[in-house]
Amino acid sequence: MTFRHVAIIGLGLLGGSIGLAIRQHLPGSATSGYDRDPATRRRAAERGLADRICETAAEAVSEADLVIFCVPPGAMGEAAAEIAGVLPAEALVSDVGSSKRMIAKVLSEALPGHAVIPAHPVAGTENSGPDAGFASLFHNRWCIITPPEQTNLVLLSRLVEFWEALGANVEIMDAEHHDLVLAVTSHLPHLIAYTIVGTASDLEQVTRSEVIKYSAGGFRDFTRIAASDPTMWRDVFLSNKDAVLEMLQRFTEDLTALQRAIRVGDGQALFDHFTRTRAIRRSIIEEGQDDARPDFGRSDHQA
Amino acid sequence: MTFRHVAIIGLGLLGGSIGLAIRQHLPGSATSGYDRDPATRRRAAERGLADRICETAAEAVSEADLVIFCVPPGAMGEAAAEIAGVLPAEALVSDVGSSKRMIAKVLSEALPGHAVIPAHPVAGTENSGPDAGFASLFHNRWCIITPPEQTNLVLLSRLVEFWEALGANVEIMDAEHHDLVLAVTSHLPHLIAYTIVGTASDLEQVTRSEVIKYSAGGFRDFTRIAASDPTMWRDVFLSNKDAVLEMLQRFTEDLTALQRAIRVGDGQALFDHFTRTRAIRRSIIEEGQDDARPDFGRSDHQA
Repeated sequence: MTFRHVAIIGLGLLGGSIGLAIRQHLPGSATSGYDRDPATRRRAAERGLADRICETAAEAVSEADLVIFCVPPGAMGEAAAEIAGVLPAEALVSDVGSSKRMIAKVLSEALPGHAVIPAHPVAGTENSGPDAGFASLFHNRWCIITPPEQTNLVLLSRLVEFWEALGANVEIMDAEHHDLVLAVTSHLPHLIAYTIVGTASDLEQVTRSEVIKYSAGGFRDFTRIAASDPTMWRDVFLSNKDAVLEMLQRFTEDLTALQRAIRVGDGQALFDHFTRTRAIRRSIIEEGQDDARPDFGRSDHQA
Repeated sequence: MTFRHVAIIGLGLLGGSIGLAIRQHLPGSATSGYDRDPATRRRAAERGLADRICETAAEAVSEADLVIFCVPPGAMGEAAAEIAGVLPAEALVSDVGSSKRMIAKVLSEALPGHAVIPAHPVAGTENSGPDAGFASLFHNRWCIITPPEQTNLVLLSRLVEFWEALGANVEIMDAEHHDLVLAVTSHLPHLIAYTIVGTASDLEQVTRSEVIKYSAGGFRDFTRIAASDPTMWRDVFLSNKDAVLEMLQRFTEDLTALQRAIRVGDGQALFDHFTRTRAIRRSIIEEGQDDARPDFGRSDHQA
């Protein structure tokens, strides 16, 4: 009941990881891959990110019964248009984008008559490009599938099984709720990290060399996610504008309250807030979504 | 030329790590330790965080030629007052606090006539208490020493050698500059992390369980530092108020600019900002202040 032939459009961190994970977990499924960058295609072929790396998107999808778009949100429409005439009628269309409402709309409009079921594996690293992918990226990570109304339930269950086979836990929700949840668990954290890294590098009283030297005091944790792919993140913010702006408004209110507590010297308010936030960390570790070792085990300092 | 007997006041992450590091790197130096919490003293004795765990601070410092206060900034004054009558006249007084101007003042006032040279090892984990310390915490981390004017240069060079023996790289700067540098590399990141974790747990449209499940999208990185010791961090913000508020003001301006770029759909401004922030990450890794493995190697996903 799994897919016979998966076409992967876009061979960066996500697309490459899907190709490698299929080879490991679904050896009965064929894969073909395409990326619009010739250097990425060459490297993808060397690493074997798909069984066949094609020179055109049309060639990659010609035998597919599942197409997964793994390109930045803003490139989905153009990528889908390239295969509009040639995609087999029965092929399911999906993606891995970090915002879902706009992508669902763009894919459906570009590929009318095709079943479109968007998905978002909540997994990644700060690296991008054809060297970044690895087969276990989705292990014990959540994949959120956002079926539109009137989705074919057989196709939906096949897509669920596909992601489960790759090691993910699957959750179904509507696209609007997805966009709100991810605005707070992913988009706002990235926006804040990008901001503070920019703030730190623009200071005139503190040199960049000092920022780098003393980053172990907390700053370095922000630089990791602020090193994520700029094109993808530009598109995420533009394609999930409303939810991001709403979460940002709430964050700013909360920050203003803590700022006031510092200004007036309200130690109790600070202490109460800082105590409350410890519990969430504990739950994240209990749920297996992070590593309990201090510093995530980096620098192996317990040795 | 090293210290003959080091007294450690406060046996949490920092104090415990100093005791263990002295045993490993300076076996010729004796150590004694005190913590005002009896349960911490018991656990410190079990782990051997110092050669001798004492029932009073006065007893711990009675033979010391170096006393290091490893208590939260707001507890420094009281801790110093406890040994004011009994500290040997020639003993050097130091500490490990994250803000330096106020602590320098408090320690000098509580221990008049003693040499006071504050220090701040920029090292730590999200854990606290007597079980958190380990001997290699300071390896390849920076220790900033902030000697007041007219510091005895012989004592200063002994303190430098002490921290270098524990594995740290030492930098000398004045307390005011320290407080500004740390406001951006450590205090502001912690404040922002505490804020966003609070924002996420207060949402009514997104459940706490969803925040936890999908935290791998970026949020979890913030929860680590927002799990740091609430008492210590309350004191840090109150004792470095001016510099923190200044950095916060700049951060807020920068965040407002990105917010506007999202609202008006200025993709170029977002892309340019996100590209600029990648370079800092690269420098931090080159300087050995973070782990280059994706996700810091947590979850060992490359296997």
